[in-house]
Amino acid sequence: MNIDMIEAAAGRLAGWVRRTPLLSSPFLDRIAGRRVLVKPECLQHTGSFKFRGGWSAVSALPEDVRSRGVIAFSSGNHAQGVAHAAQEHGVPAVIIMPADAPKLKIENTRAYGAEVVLYDRATEDRDEIGARLSEKRGLTLIKPFDEPQVIAGQGTTGLEIAEQAAEMGVSKADVLVCCGGGGLISGIALALEAKAPGLRARPVEPEGFDDAARSLAAGQIVSNERMTGSLCDAIVTPHPGELTFPIMQRLCGPGIAVSDDDALRAMAQAFTRLKVVIEPGGAVALAAALFQPEAIQGDTVIVVATGGNVDAPVFRMALERFADG
Amino acid sequence: MNIDMIEAAAGRLAGWVRRTPLLSSPFLDRIAGRRVLVKPECLQHTGSFKFRGGWSAVSALPEDVRSRGVIAFSSGNHAQGVAHAAQEHGVPAVIIMPADAPKLKIENTRAYGAEVVLYDRATEDRDEIGARLSEKRGLTLIKPFDEPQVIAGQGTTGLEIAEQAAEMGVSKADVLVCCGGGGLISGIALALEAKAPGLRARPVEPEGFDDAARSLAAGQIVSNERMTGSLCDAIVTPHPGELTFPIMQRLCGPGIAVSDDDALRAMAQAFTRLKVVIEPGGAVALAAALFQPEAIQGDTVIVVATGGNVDAPVFRMALERFADG
Repeated sequence: MNIDMIEAAAGRLAGWVRRTPLLSSPFLDRIAGRRVLVKPECLQHTGSFKFRGGWSAVSALPEDVRSRGVIAFSSGNHAQGVAHAAQEHGVPAVIIMPADAPKLKIENTRAYGAEVVLYDRATEDRDEIGARLSEKRGLTLIKPFDEPQVIAGQGTTGLEIAEQAAEMGVSKADVLVCCGGGGLISGIALALEAKAPGLRARPVEPEGFDDAARSLAAGQIVSNERMTGSLCDAIVTPHPGELTFPIMQRLCGPGIAVSDDDALRAMAQAFTRLKVVIEPGGAVALAAALFQPEAIQGDTVIVVATGGNVDAPVFRMALERFADG
Repeated sequence: MNIDMIEAAAGRLAGWVRRTPLLSSPFLDRIAGRRVLVKPECLQHTGSFKFRGGWSAVSALPEDVRSRGVIAFSSGNHAQGVAHAAQEHGVPAVIIMPADAPKLKIENTRAYGAEVVLYDRATEDRDEIGARLSEKRGLTLIKPFDEPQVIAGQGTTGLEIAEQAAEMGVSKADVLVCCGGGGLISGIALALEAKAPGLRARPVEPEGFDDAARSLAAGQIVSNERMTGSLCDAIVTPHPGELTFPIMQRLCGPGIAVSDDDALRAMAQAFTRLKVVIEPGGAVALAAALFQPEAIQGDTVIVVATGGNVDAPVFRMALERFADG
């Protein structure tokens, strides 16, 4: 993994990815006690940064391999990112999802042109199903984070941050990134190392699911004790990846953990002050910036709001509990 | 009013205004039966396009006049746009608001650095109060739409649309604009006339408050019969302006009127598919694109989502009634 791969991915994404802006509000600055710049990847195609990695991986395949199609395991943002990228390339995508996934997510993934294969979590082995389909149809597996071309695609977010921060005169800041398996933050960290060495990426996770923070502190990969029970389920993974962790270890600052309530509070602030919709897992970085200012260094903090695919009832609850007025 | 004034305003706004993107979603295209491109001015500073006009007007004043300060009558988006523009120029702003305006709007306007002067709608004359303050302190009145430099500032939205449409290969389309007094649409229409003559601006208004549509149809300025009773109150004005109407008459296509329910439906779609927050008055253009496709011409429609300053209870209601899933 290196900056050349990220720049090559940026070349393949040009004209297809949305260059998300850096948003701000004097009201958020006041809460945080410093300038807060928010990169709303919720505005990305398919509603999350995952489209970048999906596009990067699909576009990097040799033509004859790509034309046979791709396959992914996901019930969430990675599924939609890969499906839409494959659709725009005109190649088949098979997405393997648990049969009890929310109906709307299944429908959305199908609407992006993917063939959705459902399996029973209790009785079936998804890896076995995936391996069988891949072999039979020659599909290429696109892993969600521990995959070089996916990391390279996510890293294009970091190239944009480096350019936008420079335009705004920001040369030194913490860059808070909502973190699951670490594909996004390791890509961003590599981009910043090359293009904006004064910017330091730091992972933000849900309380109780802060495997990245604890792994960084321990100097080795440690796992979460459980996988369920967080409202921020989109970014809960067992542990950092084999590829992503060494990059994080070399380049990232310490992690921060955020409560579910603070994630909801941050969603309400993003609604009131930025006019963007963020999902709970996509709000933890903003929550850290707003509500844990003592954990952050510098006059400016940059926040990546990673996704906006939240169900309406959860969003309504965030507003009901935490929106002003 | 001409394109030179709009380009001069764009020069003064450069580096201060946010260049909002053009968003899209295959799901919205499917509902509308054509490609839908949405310019989310809700992401603009202060949450609406009004910041453009406010900045343009404040920045156009001679230094010695500007330093004495500006004054505006508004309880809404114009107030915040003018207040923030004045604050960033380091000059005083006085905003005259009815004493029964929502507390949050008063607080927000103050937070943008303005001095808010409240008046009693029943017993006091706001024009008299404004005239007295202006004379005593040498403040310059910034009118909300019938003011050349305000129209020029709003017109910068049209310059961006012309450039962005060209980048996307769109040379012919209806451009639907949420319309109150007509400052935004007349500015956009002038910009499109010069830069993208295949794009045609068309006003969209709430049903029962479609003074612009009826004025265009009648060939003369006609008024709304009432001023209250629409959820889209931010864009309800008595009638088109003296300056704006002749421009609209020369350049705009026919108007479209939208029900409150369709505005709420469009807000829910913007939440689910675009991840942006739109206020009811800022959603009527998207509502027309999605739910009145027969009123529109061409393969592509461009929509300006003018603002996002909606109270949480109204937004929750839109989601509760109309969001999927």
